Amino acid sequence: MRRFTSVHDLIAGPGLTAALEDALEFARHPWINADVGRRKTIGLLFMNPSLRTRMSTQIAARLLGADTIVLNAGSDSWTLETRDGVVMNGSSTEHIKEAAAVMGAYCDVLGLRTFASLTDRTADYAEEILEKFIAYAGVPVVSLESATRHPLQSFADLLTIEQFKKKPRPKVVLTWAPHPKALPQAVANSFVEWMNVSDVELLVAHPKGYELSATFASGAAVTNDQNLALDGADFVYAKNWSSYEPYGQILSQDMSWTVTTEKMALTNNAKFMHCLPVRRNMIVTDEVIDSENSIVIAQATNRVVSAQTVLYHMLKGLA
Amino acid sequence: MRRFTSVHDLIAGPGLTAALEDALEFARHPWINADVGRRKTIGLLFMNPSLRTRMSTQIAARLLGADTIVLNAGSDSWTLETRDGVVMNGSSTEHIKEAAAVMGAYCDVLGLRTFASLTDRTADYAEEILEKFIAYAGVPVVSLESATRHPLQSFADLLTIEQFKKKPRPKVVLTWAPHPKALPQAVANSFVEWMNVSDVELLVAHPKGYELSATFASGAAVTNDQNLALDGADFVYAKNWSSYEPYGQILSQDMSWTVTTEKMALTNNAKFMHCLPVRRNMIVTDEVIDSENSIVIAQATNRVVSAQTVLYHMLKGLA
Amino acid sequence: MRRFTSVHDLIAGPGLTAALEDALEFARHPWINADVGRRKTIGLLFMNPSLRTRMSTQIAARLLGADTIVLNAGSDSWTLETRDGVVMNGSSTEHIKEAAAVMGAYCDVLGLRTFASLTDRTADYAEEILEKFIAYAGVPVVSLESATRHPLQSFADLLTIEQFKKKPRPKVVLTWAPHPKALPQAVANSFVEWMNVSDVELLVAHPKGYELSATFASGAAVTNDQNLALDGADFVYAKNWSSYEPYGQILSQDMSWTVTTEKMALTNNAKFMHCLPVRRNMIVTDEVIDSENSIVIAQATNRVVSAQTVLYHMLKGLA
Repeated sequence: MRRFTSVHDLIAGPGLTAALEDALEFARHPWINADVGRRKTIGLLFMNPSLRTRMSTQIAARLLGADTIVLNAGSDSWTLETRDGVVMNGSSTEHIKEAAAVMGAYCDVLGLRTFASLTDRTADYAEEILEKFIAYAGVPVVSLESATRHPLQSFADLLTIEQFKKKPRPKVVLTWAPHPKALPQAVANSFVEWMNVSDVELLVAHPKGYELSATFASGAAVTNDQNLALDGADFVYAKNWSSYEPYGQILSQDMSWTVTTEKMALTNNAKFMHCLPVRRNMIVTDEVIDSENSIVIAQATNRVVSAQTVLYHMLKGLA
Repeated sequence: MRRFTSVHDLIAGPGLTAALEDALEFARHPWINADVGRRKTIGLLFMNPSLRTRMSTQIAARLLGADTIVLNAGSDSWTLETRDGVVMNGSSTEHIKEAAAVMGAYCDVLGLRTFASLTDRTADYAEEILEKFIAYAGVPVVSLESATRHPLQSFADLLTIEQFKKKPRPKVVLTWAPHPKALPQAVANSFVEWMNVSDVELLVAHPKGYELSATFASGAAVTNDQNLALDGADFVYAKNWSSYEPYGQILSQDMSWTVTTEKMALTNNAKFMHCLPVRRNMIVTDEVIDSENSIVIAQATNRVVSAQTVLYHMLKGLA
Repeated sequence: MRRFTSVHDLIAGPGLTAALEDALEFARHPWINADVGRRKTIGLLFMNPSLRTRMSTQIAARLLGADTIVLNAGSDSWTLETRDGVVMNGSSTEHIKEAAAVMGAYCDVLGLRTFASLTDRTADYAEEILEKFIAYAGVPVVSLESATRHPLQSFADLLTIEQFKKKPRPKVVLTWAPHPKALPQAVANSFVEWMNVSDVELLVAHPKGYELSATFASGAAVTNDQNLALDGADFVYAKNWSSYEPYGQILSQDMSWTVTTEKMALTNNAKFMHCLPVRRNMIVTDEVIDSENSIVIAQATNRVVSAQTVLYHMLKGLA
C-alpha cells in the first residue's frame, strides 16, 4: 500500500474486510509483528496541533519495530509554501515540494497532518496540500487528517463499532452539534464514507444548511430532526462541522443539538462516540460523556490499532 | 508505586531509605535494570518549558529500557481545560479528563509538568490539575513538578547532599534570594518537606513576608537573618519564591540576599546548591556559582538518578 | 574527535580524505557501524527552526545505534542568556553555561544550532555562542550550523560533488542570488572554506558589496559578473547572503541574479546545487530546480551521510 488517504486505499490494498480482521488481531495481540518495521523510520509532519494522532502513530510505529521522527511545520521546521509557480518573497520559507522530497529521502514512510483552510473550498476539496506532498514524497504516505478526510479516525471508529455492536447491522447516527469555532468537515465526511461501505444503517442529522458535500453524503440518509434520528439508535456519533455552502461558516450554535441525557434516552441504549478533542457542554453534556455508554476513550485507544494496521501494510510492502 | 507526587509516596512505597539506596546504586551502575521497561512507553506532558526534567526523564526511561513520548500542551497538542462542569465555548480545546485518559490508554506510565497559577491559591494548593490528571489517567503518574512541589528535584537534592556531606548530620540552609519574576513556592516547599524527613539540620532563611505555607514549613526552623543562617552551614541552597500571603507576590528584590563570596565565607566551607535554571548575579554571583564549591551540575546530574529510581519502582509494579 | 565546527576539525581528526572515504562507504552501506553508538545519547539543541539538520542528524545517530534527544531553546526549554557577567534580570531564564553543562552531563555528544545575529559582527565572527557551548559542555560538540559556518552542509556538498563530478577537477561556481530577507553568510563562508581545501576550481560570483569575510574568501577567485562565472561551470551553487560590510544588510535584490534556464545554458551542462530551504523564483526558477540537472535532493540526502561520518568519529572516540 503506497498511500492511505481514504477507505478506498484500503479497499484497493488489502481489502476492508481483511484490514478489519488485521486490526482486530492487532487489538488483541499488539506485538505480533514487532519486526516488520526494523530499521525503518516513519516521518510525521504536523501542520496543526494533535494529541491522539501524534501519540497513537508513534505507539503504532513502535509496536511494529519502526522509529518515528516528529516535526511541527512552522516551529520545529520551516513555514511551508504550498502554491505552485509563486515567487517566494513572502513569509513562507520552504516549498512543500522540497520538504516532501527531503523527508522522503530520509524516511521510509511519511505521515502528513493538515487542516482545511475553510476559505478556499476548491483547493481544500482537491486535497492540494496532501496530493502535492504525496506526489513529491517518493515514499508511501499516510494521511494523519487532511482537508476533507480523517481516515485513521474513521477506521478506528469502524473498529470500535465492530467491537461494541450488539446486532449485525446497528443503527448509527452521525449528529451535528454546536461548537464555538468553525471546524472542517473532514471527520464527518470521512465517517460517512466509511459507514457507507460498512454493514450499518447510517443516518446523518444536522440543522438545515449543514449539508455535507455530495461527494461524501450522496449515499447517506439525512434528516434535520435530531430527535427522529436518535430514535432506536445503537450508536450516536456527535461532531461539529462548518457549512459546505457557503463554505466554512458557522450558521448555527443551536444548543438544542447538544447531546444530553434526555436525547440519549430516545435511543436504543446507544453508545456515545466522538473523535476528541471534544468541547464539553457544547457538543455533549458532562453527564453523557462521563456515562458508562460513552466509548470515546475506546475510540481513541483504537487509533493505535488503525495506525498500526495501515503502517503494517505499508511497511510490509517495503521489504 | 502508582503515584509519585511527594516524598510521602516514596515512604509509602519502597521506603525512603531503600529508595535512596536504589538511587545510589543507579548512580554507580546506570544500566543494571535495562529491561524493566521493555515494551513500555512513558508519556510526558509539559504545560511549561523544561530542560532538566525533560531530558533527565527521557534519559532515565532509556536506562530502564522504556520508550518516551514527549508532548507540549498548547503547541504540539491542544490547550487544556482544567475546570469541571464548564461550558467549553472559550479558547481551551480539550478537557484534561480526556487528555489524561487518552494518554493513559496509550502509555504505561505518565508524567505531568505544571506550574502554580500564583493567582488561585486554593486551586494551586489543592493540586487540582495534578490530582485530576491522576484521577483520569488510569496508569501510574509521576509529577514532573506541580503547583506546590517538585519532588524529583528534591529527591535529587537529597541524593546530592548524601554524596557530598562530610558529617552524618550536616547543616543545610535554604535561603531565599532575589529574582525579577514571581516564582512558585514548589521547589522550596518540596525541599523543606524532604529535609524534614532526612537526617539533616535544616534552617530556612528569608525576608519577612516570605513565610512558606504551614503545611510544608511547620517542622522547620526559620530566620529572617541570612548571615546568622549561613554561619556554620555545610550546604547553602538558594532559591527564589514569591509570597504565600498575599499569594504570588514579589515583596522584595533585596539584592543583599544574593549569595556572594562574602556570604559563603560565613559558612563551614559550604557547598552551593540551586535547582536551575538560575538567574546569575541575582540569585548568586558568577564567582560563587563558578567556584569549586558549587555543586549545581551534580544536582542536575542526579535528576537522572531520581527519575530512574522512581520510574523503576513504577515499571516494576506493572510487570 | 572532540569538536566539529569546521573542515579544520576534520583535517586535524581523521583527515579530509579519510573522512570522505568513510562518508562514501556510509552512503553505500548505511548500517555497517550500527553498534558504535550503543547506549549513547546525542543531545541536539536548536535555537532556530530546521528540517534537514534536525531529521538527518537523528537518522544518522540511529544508523550508528545512538539515541537522540531534541530540544528547542525558548519553547521546549528556556530562553538562553549568552553574555558573560550580566545581571540576569531580563527575559532570559537560563545561562548557556548551565544549559551546556547540564546537557553535557546527560548526553555523550551534543549538537548546537544557532544563527548569526547579523547585528554584532564581532560576536558572530568570534562564534561566541558556539565556543561557550563547547567550553562548558564537557563532551564532544558538533555544530549544526553556527553564526559563520555550516560545516555538515559543506561536507555533504563536497560529497555530492564527488558523486556527480565528471572530471577530476570540476569548475564549481558559488553564486549569490536574491532573497527577501537578510541571511547569514554561514553557508557561503563554509562552502568556500571546504572548496578551498578540495580538488575543485572554485569561482565566487556576487554583486559588488557582497564580498565575504577575508578569513574565508581570501583563497578564492571572485567576480562580479555572473554570466562570466557560469561559463563552463560544472556545478552551480546558488545561495543568498547579506553583506559583511556593512554587516547584515540587504544591498540588492537584483532579480537578474536569479538562476534561470538561460543562465544554466552558459554552463557545461552544470548540476544545480542549493542547501535548502530555497525561495523558488527568487534564488532559482522552478524550471531549473525541477530540472534533471538539479541535485538539491541528493545534497540533502547526503546530510545524513555527513552527520553519520562526523558522529561516527566522535562516538568511536568515546568507547
